[in-house]
Parts: sequence; C-alpha cells; structure tokens
Amino acid sequence: MTLTGELFIGGERHGSARKFQAYDPSCGRPLEPAFSVAGAAEIEAACARAHEAFDAYRGLAPERRAVFLEAIAAHIMAQGEPLLERAHRETALPMARLESERARTAHQLRMFAAELRMGEWLDLRVDPALPHRQPAPRPDLRLRRIAVGPVAVFGASNFPLAFSVAGGDSAAALAAGCPIVVKGHPAHPGTSEWVAQAIVAAAAETGMPAGVFSLLNGPDTQLGATLVADRRIHAVAFTGSRAGGLALMQVAAQRPVPIPVFAEMSSVNPVILLPGALGARAERLAHEFVSSLTLAVGQMCTNPGILLALQCPPVQAFIEAARTALAGVTPGVMLTAGIQRNYVQSLERTRAHGAQWLAHGGEGGAANSGRAALFGVPAAALIDQPQLAEETFGPAALLVHCATLGEVRQIIEQLEGQLTLAVHMEESDQPLAQALLPALERKAGRLIVNGWPTGVEVSHAMVHGGPFPATSDARSTSVGSLAIERFLRPVCYQGFPEALLPVELRTAELPGWPHRLDGERRLARRG
Amino acid sequence: MTLTGELFIGGERHGSARKFQAYDPSCGRPLEPAFSVAGAAEIEAACARAHEAFDAYRGLAPERRAVFLEAIAAHIMAQGEPLLERAHRETALPMARLESERARTAHQLRMFAAELRMGEWLDLRVDPALPHRQPAPRPDLRLRRIAVGPVAVFGASNFPLAFSVAGGDSAAALAAGCPIVVKGHPAHPGTSEWVAQAIVAAAAETGMPAGVFSLLNGPDTQLGATLVADRRIHAVAFTGSRAGGLALMQVAAQRPVPIPVFAEMSSVNPVILLPGALGARAERLAHEFVSSLTLAVGQMCTNPGILLALQCPPVQAFIEAARTALAGVTPGVMLTAGIQRNYVQSLERTRAHGAQWLAHGGEGGAANSGRAALFGVPAAALIDQPQLAEETFGPAALLVHCATLGEVRQIIEQLEGQLTLAVHMEESDQPLAQALLPALERKAGRLIVNGWPTGVEVSHAMVHGGPFPATSDARSTSVGSLAIERFLRPVCYQGFPEALLPVELRTAELPGWPHRLDGERRLARRG
Repeated sequence: MTLTGELFIGGERHGSARKFQAYDPSCGRPLEPAFSVAGAAEIEAACARAHEAFDAYRGLAPERRAVFLEAIAAHIMAQGEPLLERAHRETALPMARLESERARTAHQLRMFAAELRMGEWLDLRVDPALPHRQPAPRPDLRLRRIAVGPVAVFGASNFPLAFSVAGGDSAAALAAGCPIVVKGHPAHPGTSEWVAQAIVAAAAETGMPAGVFSLLNGPDTQLGATLVADRRIHAVAFTGSRAGGLALMQVAAQRPVPIPVFAEMSSVNPVILLPGALGARAERLAHEFVSSLTLAVGQMCTNPGILLALQCPPVQAFIEAARTALAGVTPGVMLTAGIQRNYVQSLERTRAHGAQWLAHGGEGGAANSGRAALFGVPAAALIDQPQLAEETFGPAALLVHCATLGEVRQIIEQLEGQLTLAVHMEESDQPLAQALLPALERKAGRLIVNGWPTGVEVSHAMVHGGPFPATSDARSTSVGSLAIERFLRPVCYQGFPEALLPVELRTAELPGWPHRLDGERRLARRG
Repeated sequence: MTLTGELFIGGERHGSARKFQAYDPSCGRPLEPAFSVAGAAEIEAACARAHEAFDAYRGLAPERRAVFLEAIAAHIMAQGEPLLERAHRETALPMARLESERARTAHQLRMFAAELRMGEWLDLRVDPALPHRQPAPRPDLRLRRIAVGPVAVFGASNFPLAFSVAGGDSAAALAAGCPIVVKGHPAHPGTSEWVAQAIVAAAAETGMPAGVFSLLNGPDTQLGATLVADRRIHAVAFTGSRAGGLALMQVAAQRPVPIPVFAEMSSVNPVILLPGALGARAERLAHEFVSSLTLAVGQMCTNPGILLALQCPPVQAFIEAARTALAGVTPGVMLTAGIQRNYVQSLERTRAHGAQWLAHGGEGGAANSGRAALFGVPAAALIDQPQLAEETFGPAALLVHCATLGEVRQIIEQLEGQLTLAVHMEESDQPLAQALLPALERKAGRLIVNGWPTGVEVSHAMVHGGPFPATSDARSTSVGSLAIERFLRPVCYQGFPEALLPVELRTAELPGWPHRLDGERRLARRG
C-alpha cells in the first residue's frame, strides 16, 4: 500500500487542501507524504456518516460484529513489516516493541470478538409477568444493554497501534455497537492511515455499514474539541495528557447535551518498597525497577514514577544497584521533539523543588533522546510540595525516603488517584502491607504485589483505570474486556410481544445467552 | 417518637441556631417543630464522619450490610401510622399512596439486601497466573468492585419515603458500601427526621460505624452545592428538577476532582397511540390515560405528558372519553405552594405557545390544588416549537395530532431523552411499531407496549434512567438492582498472596460467589 495522506470518511478516502507533516523523531526530518487536515466540513461529514450508520450497526447480531473485529485483526497482521516500519519511523519505538504491540492490538480485537459471543456484556435480565400479584400485577420486564451512540476515539502518541486507530478504545466501542470517529494522533499519521485501511477493508469484506468508521487527522487541538462538541457524538475515549483530557472533559460537560468522557490521563504509579523485600533482594529489585522505568524510554502510562522506601539499611544497596544499572542504559529517542522538550523541563522542575540527583542514565544518546534519572527526597519534602508527585512523561523517578509507616501512609493519602500502586514485600512485611491496603484500594484501580506497573495484561480481570486524574471516571477501565461497559447503556422492554423483542431477549433465544431470571443467574446453554 | 427538628451527624442529633419550617400544603400553615438549618460547620462534620467511616463500612462482609438494610426496613415499618400521618401532613399525598410508598421503600431495602447476598454486584473475575506463557508469563489477576466513597443523596419532593432519606438512592449507596450524607427535601423535614431515626437505630443495632449516615436539612440551594463540592464526597444521587440537577452537575464538574452526578431530572414520557389500538379500545385507553395522568396529582417522574396520536377516526372518541373522565377528577392538593404556582404558569405557557384546550379536570379543588388539563396541537406546531415538549410537573398532557408515521418519527427524533416511551398497539400495528423501535431505543431507558409509564417496578430488569435530560448519565438507573452499579468501581489485585486478598477473592471463598474464571461464567456454589 502507498500512503496517500488522505482522511477516511465513512470508509472513503478524502483529501483536503490544508496539509501537515509527520517527522522522524530521531532526526527531525519530515516524512512523506503530507497529510490532509480535517476541518469543520470533514468533522461534520464523519459525524453524519456515523449517525446514519448507528442503528444498522448496533442492530447487527453480535456474531457479525465479532467477525468484523477478527477481520480487522487479520488485515492488520496481513500488512506485515511495512506497517511496523512506518510506525518505527514515526515513533522511534524499536521494531521488537512494535511487533509485540501489534500482537497485543490483534489480541484485543479478538478478545472483544470472544466477549461478544459470550454475551456477558448484554447483561440480559428477565423478570417475568406476575398477572395475579396483589395489590398490582407485574408486567413482563426484560433488560439488555445497547450501544450509547457514535464514539470519538483519540489516538495516543505512545501506543501507535494498541491505543490508536484500531486500539483498545476502538475495539471496545466497535464491539459495543458504536460507530467510531477516530482523531488520529498527529505524530504518526502514516501508521494511522495503514491501520485505517485495514479497518475499511474489514468493514467492506464483512458487510458493515460504511459510516461505522472515519479517521480525521490534524495538528491542532481545535479538531478534537469540535469533534467532542458535535451533537451526534455520544461518548469520548481518550488516552493522553492531563491538560488534553481536562480540556475535552470541559467541552463535553458544557454541551447542551453533556456526554461521558473516558480519559486516561495521569499517573505516577507509586511503588512501595517494604523492609523485608529490600532486605531479601535489594539488587534484584533495583534491576527490575530500572527495566520498568526505562521501558519505551519511560513513555508509558504505567511508568513507576515514585518509589516509597521505608527506611532500612538495604535502601542504600538498592540505590547503588540502581545507579549501576541506570548508567548502562543508553538514552533512547523519544516519541516527539515536544515530548523530549517537556521531559527535560520536567527534570529541571523536579530539581528546582529541591530533589537530589541519585542516579543518571548513560550518556551518548542520539538527538531527541531522553536520559533516565532517579531523584531522592525525604518524605517531608513530598508532603510539603505535592507538585513533586506530578507525572513526568519519560524515564524519571523519585525515591522518597520514609522514616515510618506513618509517613508512607500520609503520602498515600495525599496522592492523587493512580492507575496502579505496587508493593514489594516478603512474608515478614505482611502486617505493614495489610495496614496500608485500605488506603491503596481507595487510590488506584490496580494493586500489585511483587511486580512492576508496566506490562498491562489484556484480560478479563484487568483494570486500567483509577480515581481522578488517573482517569476521568474511576468506574471505568480502558484495557480488558470490562472496557466495553463504557459504551453501553441499559434499556428495559416492558410488556413487549415476542415478535417485537430484540432477538436475544425472546423466550426462544434467551437460554442461549447468560442472563438473570428474576435475579437468579443462568448460564448460557449453547447448541 | 417526638420530632425535635434536629439534624443527624454521624448518628447523633445536632441542633443549630438557624431554623426553618415545614408547611401543610393543604392550608399553608406552618407545621411544628421548627427545623435546624445545616450550615458550613454541619456539612464539614457530616462529610468528615462519612470519610472516617468509609473504610470500616465498605470493609464489612456483604452479609453485615444486608442485615443493616433489613433492619432499616424493619424500623421504618415499626414506626407505624405516625410516620405516614406526618408524611401526609407535609405532602398532602393520600394515606393509601403513602402506605404503598412505604411498602416500596421497605421492598427496595430488602431487594438490595438480597442482591448483596447474591454477589453479582461484586463482578468477581479471576485470570489465573500463567507462569510458563511465552513470550511473557501472566501474573495472577483478580477483580472485584468496591464502593466509590461517601455519597451525597438528595431527597425528592414527590417521594417522601421511596426517594428520600432511606429511599432507592440511599439503599443502593449503602448496599454498595458507601456512607451517605442525605440532604433532606425541605418540604418534608418531619418525615425525614422519622426515617433518619430508623436508620440511626438500625445502624446502632447492627453495629455499623456511626458516620455511615448523616441528615442535613435546609431551605436554600447553597446547602446542596456546598455538600457536592466537599472533597470527601465521591458521587451524587439526585431526583428533582432539571435546573437543580444541572446546577449540581456544574458544581461536580468544576471541582478540583470531578465526581459523577446521577441526576434524574426531566421527562415527558411520550405515549404513542397507534390506529389499531385506538380502533379496538379508544375509550379504555382514555380511562387508563386519565388514571396515569392524574396519579398523585401528576407529580410523577413518569407522568405521561405527551400523547402522539396517529390520525384516524377513533382519535375523537379517545378525546371525548378523556374529556368525560377528566371532568370527574377532583383537583388534588399539590406538594408545595411553589410547585402549584409553577404548574399554573406552565399551563399558561403551553397556551401561549398556541396549544388548544381539549379537556379540563373537574372544578372545586381545595387551596393549592392542581386541576388536570389536556391540550391539543398539530404535529407541525410541536416540530416548530420544541419548547412545547418541556416537562410540566403536574397533571397536564399534550395530545399531538400526527398525520403520518413520518411525523411521529420526526417528533421522536426531535425529542430530548426520556425515562420512558410507550406504544399502544394491536397486532395490526406491528409494522408501524417495528419501524419506530430503533428511534425509541435511542431516546429512552424503558420502552413500554400497551402500558402506561407510571408504576415503576422495583426489580432486576427495571431501568429508571435514560438519555439526557431524563438523567445526567444514560448508563445508569435509579430504580432496580442495577442501581447499585452507580456507586461501585472495579479494582484489580495482581500477584496478591492469598492472605492479603479480599475475602471473596480468596481461592477458598471464590466458588461461593458468582464469578468469571478466565472469562468463563461460574455459578455460586453455596453451602
């Protein structure tokens, strides 16, 4: 496939007069071709097509949408190396990482296909009529969940495949029955065009309404704001910066008809190092920490940005080992020049707040690279200056020396909401961990014992969400099968004749799906 | 019990210097005693107590909270006639209605107790570790849902028992594990005090932390806004006016940490009369309509405010029968003088928009009563003036003459979101109903065939919610067991040792609860 730089509106390529460029972050040179910028007319057209397609798309049998999702995965895989090479040129992410990200992207699409077939997402409930009940009869009541409406999906800079055009948010929204209008991330428009082509081909092949997918591109934030303000958009999925997420939340709340925004924004993913664990394996912990911190040049939502170390002699061994390990890490090229600039400024801010340098990454990085950094502060400094706990997007962390468990707890209580909170412990640390647990549960969506926050499993029990500002809605996750719930709403059908009921709620079909009958759980009986 | 007019803060009575009065709406005279007004200090104290109680309360076994909810129901029932008499004096609602509302209130509390024991609300999921998986092992992942935090609950004027201090929102929040701070409706503070006493007694009897419940009263809207702005409040449940709900949504969105507001606000519950149904039973439909319209003087969220009649000769018979039936309805006393004043103004506004009087309720109502009204307009008038479709709180409806199914559909597409949409049909109307169905699904949370919107069943398949402005979040319901989901968020436990896991996620306990194992549904195996 040759890139044309065009947008996709309802499955058709569409060029516009205004153009923008992608850049190779490793050298700063523009990449060909130039890409069309979506303006008001393109936003209008994409939303109109999504709205037109909505009833037809959500009305398809779940099996049809499952086949569509699987076809998207197959088309992405079939694009082979050229897709990964383009993504590499646009993001500087290593090919091995992009290969595993592509595998994850395909896995996400297939997981939602499997979820569609299992039918748990429908939340089917039937309360049969009780015509003779006193003092009043009960009508027949049946419930299913349906798609909320067209969804605006924002591509993320740091996952050009797994959280962009056909990423987790798109897969969840399409599975739910929502047409999507994707605002591609301007740093990787070529990767976006490749993947868009896979979606459009899959939609045509499996007979989907064309309006189910559009891709809009552009370098300005106005595009996203106009899209979120469009009356035909019913929900928003966003992964990105706190400022970006907050801006979209404002737009959504001020619409004549407010809509939900699911923004995954900001997390420093604190890791608590308890004395037993430090005593047993300070060096191993330090090596694991450095791997987690410098993964993808620290450009991960789950980067371990804060270490809370309970004071004990092995803390120094941990720092020494981390220093040695960090010194061996060659600085990697960051996703964009802007991200690199922000990273450097963020390090300066941390120092200005009085944090001490504990360790550096190695020298000798290429242009636009991010050198890893570990800072140290006493607990009192973080308690006095909560700004020190703000997210740095890049491979930097802050080690906080805590004299007592009380200080650890005070810092946790003071923290903003997080995606993850991790504890490294031995059996001897159990009473300490137990004492911290209620506070940890209140502050994060995922709690980890003896692991690191990076490496988000795509499965049923995963939560990639958490209290604000980790996400805009703590009741949501953007990874795992539970992510589909963001785009569904319940509808009750009262007194419906069999022929008018949605297929899966008909008396003949119901036993084939998991459901609750008068509240009691019934398993699906499949033929 | 003698009413003291005090507030309850964390289970203790608390008086304040500033007072307000309740009034008997049938005569306008103040009712004794005077009631304490909550100010900033009381809001602060109630929120502090709720926050302190949160970990202890949410940490209780589900069975403990179930017993608490059942004890609240028992204490309310044990208060007997004096509770109903006070509610009658404050609201003018008939004793028979209050008796059935009390039964519903107790039923709601018991339904959530049963739901707590069934455990579906926990949404337990386990993805076991795959230590040998390539290219990377999978850690053990377990998910449960936990309470979001203390909830601010707003009492509703029109349901002094079922949607006030121990109403549906309180029951759902308490079931989820959330302490509640209730802002009682100022029109029935005596009823609120009675019910608060029942909750406090039940909490003491069943060993709940005292901060689990507070009741704040006051006549000003500032009280609610200050409560919603408090950093320790994590969600809001509100049933009331559109203006009130929108104001709270604004406050919640502008907090440093925004929180979800579940506001049930505004719905005109359109009812579509199809030709087959009108031909078969115009008179019966008219009688049923008048009963539904005038129930509780029309002061119902589910009042049928708009009739869409597809043009056919029996429409006239329907109107004649409705006219006769309405003439026999004596105007009832409305909940407050303010509601009555707004109702009269709303009728004047409808006439000013050019609607024709079709029928009146009977004359001779007492002071402060609301006379029923049926207006008529051609479809074109409603299409030109969408304001005609705004909610009138009281026994008034608008019959819209639709020449074609296209006009019905155009009006539905133009409507704001609704709690309910109903269709009256015969088998011959099936093609028409089928054609309308996708639009109906997009516009409402509950679709009704051959029934009227009033009479909301409290069960598992009920949805009392709908697209904005019916509710602030179409993904929620405030009635039925699904209402608990508003106050829960998922937490993932990764790599946890057995002893540190929440009890219900431990390998030994898990089979006793419904759960998903690697995505596959498993039933609970009990004792």
